[in-house]
Amino acid sequence: MSLTSQVRTILDKYESDTPGTKANLVRLMNTGKLAGTGKMVILPVDQGFEHGPARSFAANPPAYDPYYHFSLAIDAGLNAFAAPVGMLEAGASHFAGQIPLILKCNSSNSLATEKNQAVTGTVSDALRLGCSAIGFTIYPGSEYCFDQMNELRELAQEAKAAGLVVIVWSYPRGPMLDKKGETAIDICAYAAHMAAECGAHIIKVKPPTDVLSLPAAKAVYEQEKIDISTMAARVRHVVQSTFAGRRIVIFSGGEHESTDALLDTVRGIHDGGGFGSIIGRNTFQRPREEALALLSTITDIFKS
Amino acid sequence: MSLTSQVRTILDKYESDTPGTKANLVRLMNTGKLAGTGKMVILPVDQGFEHGPARSFAANPPAYDPYYHFSLAIDAGLNAFAAPVGMLEAGASHFAGQIPLILKCNSSNSLATEKNQAVTGTVSDALRLGCSAIGFTIYPGSEYCFDQMNELRELAQEAKAAGLVVIVWSYPRGPMLDKKGETAIDICAYAAHMAAECGAHIIKVKPPTDVLSLPAAKAVYEQEKIDISTMAARVRHVVQSTFAGRRIVIFSGGEHESTDALLDTVRGIHDGGGFGSIIGRNTFQRPREEALALLSTITDIFKS
Amino acid sequence: MSLTSQVRTILDKYESDTPGTKANLVRLMNTGKLAGTGKMVILPVDQGFEHGPARSFAANPPAYDPYYHFSLAIDAGLNAFAAPVGMLEAGASHFAGQIPLILKCNSSNSLATEKNQAVTGTVSDALRLGCSAIGFTIYPGSEYCFDQMNELRELAQEAKAAGLVVIVWSYPRGPMLDKKGETAIDICAYAAHMAAECGAHIIKVKPPTDVLSLPAAKAVYEQEKIDISTMAARVRHVVQSTFAGRRIVIFSGGEHESTDALLDTVRGIHDGGGFGSIIGRNTFQRPREEALALLSTITDIFKS
Amino acid sequence: MSLTSQVRTILDKYESDTPGTKANLVRLMNTGKLAGTGKMVILPVDQGFEHGPARSFAANPPAYDPYYHFSLAIDAGLNAFAAPVGMLEAGASHFAGQIPLILKCNSSNSLATEKNQAVTGTVSDALRLGCSAIGFTIYPGSEYCFDQMNELRELAQEAKAAGLVVIVWSYPRGPMLDKKGETAIDICAYAAHMAAECGAHIIKVKPPTDVLSLPAAKAVYEQEKIDISTMAARVRHVVQSTFAGRRIVIFSGGEHESTDALLDTVRGIHDGGGFGSIIGRNTFQRPREEALALLSTITDIFKS
Amino acid sequence: MSLTSQVRTILDKYESDTPGTKANLVRLMNTGKLAGTGKMVILPVDQGFEHGPARSFAANPPAYDPYYHFSLAIDAGLNAFAAPVGMLEAGASHFAGQIPLILKCNSSNSLATEKNQAVTGTVSDALRLGCSAIGFTIYPGSEYCFDQMNELRELAQEAKAAGLVVIVWSYPRGPMLDKKGETAIDICAYAAHMAAECGAHIIKVKPPTDVLSLPAAKAVYEQEKIDISTMAARVRHVVQSTFAGRRIVIFSGGEHESTDALLDTVRGIHDGGGFGSIIGRNTFQRPREEALALLSTITDIFKS
Repeated sequence: MSLTSQVRTILDKYESDTPGTKANLVRLMNTGKLAGTGKMVILPVDQGFEHGPARSFAANPPAYDPYYHFSLAIDAGLNAFAAPVGMLEAGASHFAGQIPLILKCNSSNSLATEKNQAVTGTVSDALRLGCSAIGFTIYPGSEYCFDQMNELRELAQEAKAAGLVVIVWSYPRGPMLDKKGETAIDICAYAAHMAAECGAHIIKVKPPTDVLSLPAAKAVYEQEKIDISTMAARVRHVVQSTFAGRRIVIFSGGEHESTDALLDTVRGIHDGGGFGSIIGRNTFQRPREEALALLSTITDIFKS
Repeated sequence: MSLTSQVRTILDKYESDTPGTKANLVRLMNTGKLAGTGKMVILPVDQGFEHGPARSFAANPPAYDPYYHFSLAIDAGLNAFAAPVGMLEAGASHFAGQIPLILKCNSSNSLATEKNQAVTGTVSDALRLGCSAIGFTIYPGSEYCFDQMNELRELAQEAKAAGLVVIVWSYPRGPMLDKKGETAIDICAYAAHMAAECGAHIIKVKPPTDVLSLPAAKAVYEQEKIDISTMAARVRHVVQSTFAGRRIVIFSGGEHESTDALLDTVRGIHDGGGFGSIIGRNTFQRPREEALALLSTITDIFKS
Repeated sequence: MSLTSQVRTILDKYESDTPGTKANLVRLMNTGKLAGTGKMVILPVDQGFEHGPARSFAANPPAYDPYYHFSLAIDAGLNAFAAPVGMLEAGASHFAGQIPLILKCNSSNSLATEKNQAVTGTVSDALRLGCSAIGFTIYPGSEYCFDQMNELRELAQEAKAAGLVVIVWSYPRGPMLDKKGETAIDICAYAAHMAAECGAHIIKVKPPTDVLSLPAAKAVYEQEKIDISTMAARVRHVVQSTFAGRRIVIFSGGEHESTDALLDTVRGIHDGGGFGSIIGRNTFQRPREEALALLSTITDIFKS
Repeated sequence: MSLTSQVRTILDKYESDTPGTKANLVRLMNTGKLAGTGKMVILPVDQGFEHGPARSFAANPPAYDPYYHFSLAIDAGLNAFAAPVGMLEAGASHFAGQIPLILKCNSSNSLATEKNQAVTGTVSDALRLGCSAIGFTIYPGSEYCFDQMNELRELAQEAKAAGLVVIVWSYPRGPMLDKKGETAIDICAYAAHMAAECGAHIIKVKPPTDVLSLPAAKAVYEQEKIDISTMAARVRHVVQSTFAGRRIVIFSGGEHESTDALLDTVRGIHDGGGFGSIIGRNTFQRPREEALALLSTITDIFKS
Repeated sequence: MSLTSQVRTILDKYESDTPGTKANLVRLMNTGKLAGTGKMVILPVDQGFEHGPARSFAANPPAYDPYYHFSLAIDAGLNAFAAPVGMLEAGASHFAGQIPLILKCNSSNSLATEKNQAVTGTVSDALRLGCSAIGFTIYPGSEYCFDQMNELRELAQEAKAAGLVVIVWSYPRGPMLDKKGETAIDICAYAAHMAAECGAHIIKVKPPTDVLSLPAAKAVYEQEKIDISTMAARVRHVVQSTFAGRRIVIFSGGEHESTDALLDTVRGIHDGGGFGSIIGRNTFQRPREEALALLSTITDIFKS
C-alpha cells in the first residue's frame, strides 16, 4: 500500500529516525478510519490506575474488562490503543496485530503522596507485547520533572534504537501553577515544546484555554498579539510551538465536558491543524453504542 | 493429567505469558486438596521478619522451626508455601518437589523507620530454590510506592522471562489513609487494580470492609449503587476490579479474628468469587492439629 | 480489524509465542491480496548475493535497483519482501510501513568454497529497519549444518524475545545427497521437520519430487504406502511433517521452469494444503507487467 | 587544508586529548567566516526549552521552525550550532555535514521548581546525530552543582573517549549570589576556572561586570590591583583564569541589550583576547536579514 | 555551506542511515579539490603492511614516514586518507581535522600462510582517532570469506550506530579464481554487489577487465549482450550492479601500469559513472612532485 501525500509529508519530517520508527509511525497513521489522513484518534486507558477502578469503570461496568477497550478501539476504527503493561498483557495475545499498541510506561495514582509516576513498563515489554510505541508522562513544573525527563531520556534512547515511536504526555503541574494555569495557553504551548525538545515523536497535551499564566509569557503574547481567542487559534499556536508542525501533537479530551463541548473542542483541534485526539473517559464511561457513535462523529470531523 | 475446565478457564486468561509461567500457574492450582478447583489456599510465613519471632512463634514454639511450616502446608494439602529467602533455604532441599514455593522477595520489619521494605530475594534465588513464583509487596499510598513499583517492574520482567509467576501483595497505607481506610472497599479494589496494572499474575489483598475512604470514590459508589453490603458483594467488586476476573485475586486472613469470624470471611470470599485465601498467623499460632482442622474446614469451603 | 477464522486458527497454533511475535505473524498474514486467507506469497531477493547480479538481474535490468523489488512486492499485493541487510537499507526508509519486511540474516554466494553462509544481519538490524521477521538458511546434510543450527539458535532466541517471527529456509545439501536427493520427498519432509524442531515459526522448503533418497526412509514410505504420487500429496506430507500443520510451511518456486510448470507446482502446493509460495527469480526476471500478471494468477490460486 | 598558525597554536594546548577530539576542535575552528582565525561565533538555540516558545520565537515567527536556525547559522558563516536533542533531530539529517553541531545535553526550564537541569541527551545521541561536541551547563553556587559536576564527569569521560569536544556553560547562581553577583568579575573568572578544572575543552561564561562579589576575593583584587575597569580587561582576566589561555573561553551575548551595547561587548571580548561569542536571542529574535547583518558585523570584529 | 545537487542526490540514497553517517559521507564528499562534485579520490597506505616496507617505500624513501602520506593526501587535495591503526596513530594528532581519515580495520601481509586478514582496528579506535569511516577488506571466493563477512557485520553494526561510514574493499580471490579471474568483469561486479548486500556505504573494487570467468555468468553476459568492451562500459555495469548506483563505488589504481594506462583507466572510470579512485602505490612510489602532478591530473579528470 503506497502512502498518501499527507502521510508522506508527515513522515518526511522524522528525518533523523530509523526505518523501524518510520514504519511504526506509518502503522499509527495507516490504521482505522483515519488511515491515510495524517490524523489520529487514540484510546488511552490508564484511568483505572490513575483514579481507581470504580471511578473509571462503574458508570459502564463492561469496561472493567480489558478486552472491552481493545475491542472498542478496534471497532471504532481508531489508530491505536494505549495502556499500562498489565492491561496490555490481558489482551495483547488475543488482539495481536489488530490495532497498534502503545505501552504506557509510567503511571501515577490517586493514593500517591508525590506528583510523580512509577515506571511500570520497559522497552523489552513493549517489544514482547508487539507495541508500536511507548508512552511516557512528564509533569513540567513539578519537582519531579527533571527526574522524569532523565527517565524519559533512557527509555527514549532504547526505544528509538529498537524502531519504536516515543509518545510523550506533557502535563504541566506543580507549585507555580494553579488549576487554571495547568491548561493556560502559554503553559500548554511550552509543555508541548519541551516534549519536542526531549526528542518525542508524538506529543499529547490538554486542550489549552485562553488563560495566560506566566507574567513573562503574558507580556510577550500581548505585545506580539498572538491570537489565542479561539480553540483553533490556540491549537495552531501549540502546533507552531512544536517545531512549526514538525512533530505530531495531539490533544486529550478533557474532563467533565458535555458531548457538545467535547465535539466543539475536537472541531477546534481540527480547524487549528492539530493532528488528532486521545480520548479515554469521554468514551468508555458511556454505553458502547453511544461511545461508537461519538467516536464516529469525532473521526468524521478529522476526516473532513 | 489433563486440566479441569475450571483450571483451563483461568489459565486461558494468562494469554500473554510464556508456557513456563503457565506451567507454574498450573502447579499452584493443581496441588493439594483444592487441585483442579481453580481455588487456592496458601501458607505465608514472613511474620517473624515483619513482627519478630516471639510475637510470631512463641504461642506455638514448634513454629520457630522452618520445617514446621513446610510440613504444615504439605500435610494440610495447601497449594503453596511462601516465605523469605532464609526460611526457604532452611527447608527447600528437604521438601524439594513436595509443594510449590513462593519466594517472598521483599519484607518489612517492626524496627524499620520507614514504611518501606527491603528486597532480600531475587529471581536467581527463586530459580535455585525451585520456586514457582516470586512474591512482592507494594504499599499504595505510601511515599515509597513509586520506588516499590519500580523495583517490582525489574523483578517481574525478569521473573516472567524465567517462567515464574508474579504474586503482588498490595497493602495500602500512608498519609492519606487512616487505619480504617487501609481496608476500605474503594481502597482495596483500587489496590488490587494497581497490582494488576503493574502486571501481577496473582494479587493478594486484605478482606475489604464496607468503609468508603476517598471522597471522590465515595460519590461514585453511591451514585452507581455499587453493592458493598456483604463480604461476598465486596469480594465480587474486587474481583471485577482486577480486570473483570482475568487475574487471580486472593485474600489474607486478617488480624485478631475469632475462628468463626475468620470462617465467615472465608465463606464471603468464596461466595463472592474470590480465588482463595492466604492465611498465616491464624494457623501456625495454634497447635498443629487445630491448625490442620481449621485448614481442612477452609479448603472444604472453597471446594463447596 | 478483527481476524478471519483462517488467520485465527493458524495464530492459535503459535501458543508459546509472545504477543509481539503473534502481531508480526498477523502482519504477515493480513497484508496484500491474500490478507485474511491464511496463505502467503513472499518475494525474496537474495539471488544477487547468491548467484551474482548479472545472472539475477540482467534479464530485466530495472531489477538492479532495490526500489524495483520493494515496489513489485507492494504493487503485486504480496505478503512480505525478504532481502539481505544492504538491499533493505537501500529502501526501508522510503517504503517504511508499506509492506512487512524480512531480514535475510545469512547468505551464501557462488564464489564460496564451502557450502556455508555468512551471517550478515542481526536482530538489531531487523528492529532498526522495521522488519517483522528474520530469515535464516540451514543446509541439512552439509558439514556446516550444526554450526548453522547453532547460529540460528542464538538469532532465534533474541528474535523471539523481541517479538519477531523466525523464518527458516531449510535446503538440504551435502555429501550424502546428490542433486536429485536434495529435493526428494523424504529429504524435503525431513528438512521441514528439522526447521520446525529448531523452533522456526515459518519454514521454507523446495517443492518435493517423488524421489525417495535415503534407503531407510524409502523402506518406510513403501511399507506405509505414503502417497507421494502428486505434488499435492507430497505437499500434504510435508505439511504433516511440520508438526501436523502446526507450523506454516511455504515453498520456493524452483529453477528453470516454464510458467505453466510453475503454476502447476503452485496449484499442487495449494491443493496439498501448503501455506504459500516464496518466489523470486520467476518473477523479477521477467518484465514488470508480466511479473504482476503472474503474481496475480498465483495469488488467485491461493485465494481459490 | 593545512592549519593556520592561530589554529595550530590553540590546538597544541589540548595536548592530552585524542586526535578525534582535536579533529573536532579543528572542525569548530575551521568552519565559517572565522575559519582559521582561532575565533568562533556559535548559535545556541535552547531558549525555547529554557523560557518557552513564545518568549523565544514570537518576535520572529519563522524561528519556531528548527530549520530556520540551522539555516541561519550556516548562512551567517558561523562556526557551530548548538541545541537540545529534539531540535537537532528535526534537522540533522537535512543539514548533515553542513555545519558542526553541538548537542546540548542538559536543559532547564522556566517552570522548574529547582535551579537544576534535566539531562536529555547522551554521547550516543551526539554520535548518531553527527555532532562534534557535547554541551553541558553547570550552576556553580547552586545546591545542585555537585550533582551537575558528577553528571558532567560521566558524560565528559565518554565524550572524550569517542573523540568529541566537551563544552561547558558555566553559569553561577545560588544562595550566595544575588543577581549582580552572578556576573561579577570574580565570580565569572571563578566559574570559568571551575569548568576548566572539570576538564572542559571550551568554556562559555557571561560577559563579566566590574562588580566584585565575594569579600575574600574582593580583598585580593584590590590588593593586587587587578584591572577590571573595562570589558577588555575583565575578559583578559577571565582568559588568564582559564589556565592562562590554554582553554578556549567564549562569552554569551547577554540579555536585553541594544545592538550597540552588544557590539561594544563583543569588541571588549575581542580586545581582551576572548575566543568568541555564543549568541542566541540577540540574533534569532530579529528578522533574518537584520540577524545576518549583525552576525556579519560580529564576525568582522573577531576577524579584525 | 549548503550542498551541491550532486552531493545531495548521492546523500539522499543513504536513506536508512543516521545523520552522523550522513555527515561523514558529506565530509568525504566535500573535502579537497573534488568537493561538491560527488566524486572522490582517496589515498590508501597499507602496502607496507601488505607487502613489506622496502617493497612499498624504498622507491621513494620519504614515504617510510607516515607524515609523508598525510601530507601528500592533504596537499594533493584528496578526499580522504586510509591506513591501519598504527600509521594513523603516527600522524592523526598532527594532522587532526585537515583531511577525513579512514581506519583500515583489517590487513593481510606477505608472510601470511592463509589468504586472510587480521583485524587490527576497531570502531573505538576510529572514534578516538577522529576518523570519518572504517575500511574493511573481504575476499569473496576465499575460504575465509564467510569469517570476514561475519567480522564485517559486527564492525559495521557498531560503526553505523556511531555515525561512521563503512567502506568495503571487495577483492575476489581463492581456489575458483585464477589471476585473470580476480579482475574479470563478472567477478568484479559480483564482488561489488556482495559488499553492497553486506551493508557497505562505499565499495572499492579493482578496475575490471573484459574477461568473463564463471561459465554460468558468461552465458548470461553473452545472451543479454551486456557491453563489456570498454572500461567505461564495464564500470557502468559495476555501478549498476551496486544497487543501480545507490551506493558509491570506487576503483583502485591497479598494479604495474604505466602512467598513461593508469590515466586511461581513470578516464574509463569517470566516463562509466564511477564515483572515484583510490590510488596508493601509483602515487607514493614516485617523487612527491610527480605524485602531486599525477593526482592533479586525476582530480581534473573527475572534475571534467
